[in-house]
Amino acid sequence: MSHEIIVKIYYDDTDAGGVVYYSNYFRYMEHARTEFLSELGIEIYKLHEQGSLFVVARAEADYKRPAVLGDIITVTTEVREIKSASLVLCHDVLRDGELLVRGSITMVHVDSTRRPRRLPDDLARKLPQPPGKNTED
Amino acid sequence: MSHEIIVKIYYDDTDAGGVVYYSNYFRYMEHARTEFLSELGIEIYKLHEQGSLFVVARAEADYKRPAVLGDIITVTTEVREIKSASLVLCHDVLRDGELLVRGSITMVHVDSTRRPRRLPDDLARKLPQPPGKNTED
Amino acid sequence: MSHEIIVKIYYDDTDAGGVVYYSNYFRYMEHARTEFLSELGIEIYKLHEQGSLFVVARAEADYKRPAVLGDIITVTTEVREIKSASLVLCHDVLRDGELLVRGSITMVHVDSTRRPRRLPDDLARKLPQPPGKNTED
Amino acid sequence: MSHEIIVKIYYDDTDAGGVVYYSNYFRYMEHARTEFLSELGIEIYKLHEQGSLFVVARAEADYKRPAVLGDIITVTTEVREIKSASLVLCHDVLRDGELLVRGSITMVHVDSTRRPRRLPDDLARKLPQPPGKNTED
Repeated sequence: MSHEIIVKIYYDDTDAGGVVYYSNYFRYMEHARTEFLSELGIEIYKLHEQGSLFVVARAEADYKRPAVLGDIITVTTEVREIKSASLVLCHDVLRDGELLVRGSITMVHVDSTRRPRRLPDDLARKLPQPPGKNTED
Repeated sequence: MSHEIIVKIYYDDTDAGGVVYYSNYFRYMEHARTEFLSELGIEIYKLHEQGSLFVVARAEADYKRPAVLGDIITVTTEVREIKSASLVLCHDVLRDGELLVRGSITMVHVDSTRRPRRLPDDLARKLPQPPGKNTED
Repeated sequence: MSHEIIVKIYYDDTDAGGVVYYSNYFRYMEHARTEFLSELGIEIYKLHEQGSLFVVARAEADYKRPAVLGDIITVTTEVREIKSASLVLCHDVLRDGELLVRGSITMVHVDSTRRPRRLPDDLARKLPQPPGKNTED
Repeated sequence: MSHEIIVKIYYDDTDAGGVVYYSNYFRYMEHARTEFLSELGIEIYKLHEQGSLFVVARAEADYKRPAVLGDIITVTTEVREIKSASLVLCHDVLRDGELLVRGSITMVHVDSTRRPRRLPDDLARKLPQPPGKNTED
């Protein structure tokens, strides 16, 4: 079972091709994981007060169908992989249950000099385990 | 005589209406004044190292004609007013000499607690005087 | 009494100054008026099927205080003026009741050649009257 | 040898983390390939007049180091793969020769119903061959 948020598509989300501009889905995915983590009690933008932050190390998306102006879409978040200093999250963008875009984001936990740093114990404990594995690197 | 920059319109600048999304012109105006100030020797994003910054206090734009995908537009910058702690800059967005959008931006020089602060001497000295006036408040 | 929407501030809304980038408030105002009109039964992006659309003729904003990452803000919409072919809407951006930004947007109803066109009867009838006046031009 | 464009980083490119927001690199890559194709005589936004367009089917990026406010970066474009109806382009984002982000974009040529369609002969002929292969699917 995955976490989800709802996003409505306005003019500024779209481009002259009449559809949502391709990089905007990465914005929605970031909103989705911010809420996902927030519900686990982790506010990513508060982490830096403790001297650390999450950075995106890799982002990928497969585009199946475009969202258009006025659409109301769902963006899901699922933990796919947990390593000692990083996370892979999977996001599906759906409209009425139909898959529009599937994304995968690798986030690395780093210190203030951007060097990888063990995931906060708190987070590691709270994250739902990915289906079928729990990789330790 | 005014300073100018050139901006090319790509897909991400446009919306499903087929034209440049209205708030994007404010982005181009900010690029224009950044380059305008840079050519006067002032890098606005370096000011904070000296404990100050410029914030936008007021922005306005009149939209005459839309720019579209593939357009190459010019964005001018002119000083319209200089006060002790603020500046009013005027920006025209033109395509082949035709006015598309006219904007006016009031920037206030503030300290780290966001209280107005006298313009840096350096800047006040270097700024071209506005046509026909030099208001002191 | 005014219509309102809620907007949450994510990373992509902010800039390196640590606050919401100034032009983004115009995006939120557009979302606000889209929802405002939608609740009156008018979907602005469906108007073009009837050969007309609304374009922004003038936009202005006064910035009082910045919104920051993680903020949850309210964006109100009020009709300030109704003319034969245009509307002026006023938007306040608030955080916990405190005014951050006040905007005013003039929208003109135009035909497919971008010439002003009388407001749709439907809309003119449904719009709440502006406080203290009902200007006819 | 690859094609390149220059991009300057302004406030609106950055986020409160002080670096370029991750999805914006996809915008720069799109600008890069638009110019790349333009120099080959192909204006992608004119294709639809001939009843076709290019859509992004897959996008990926590996983030090595962040670009920051005021940076001047180079975005390269190289053809990595040519198939009958699609192209894979590779983009490097560099600052002073140092790799910041490496992206890969799969573009599919589609007709007005979004069904894959053979690459325009013109384009297929003009594209530089990818290094070491010329896959036909």
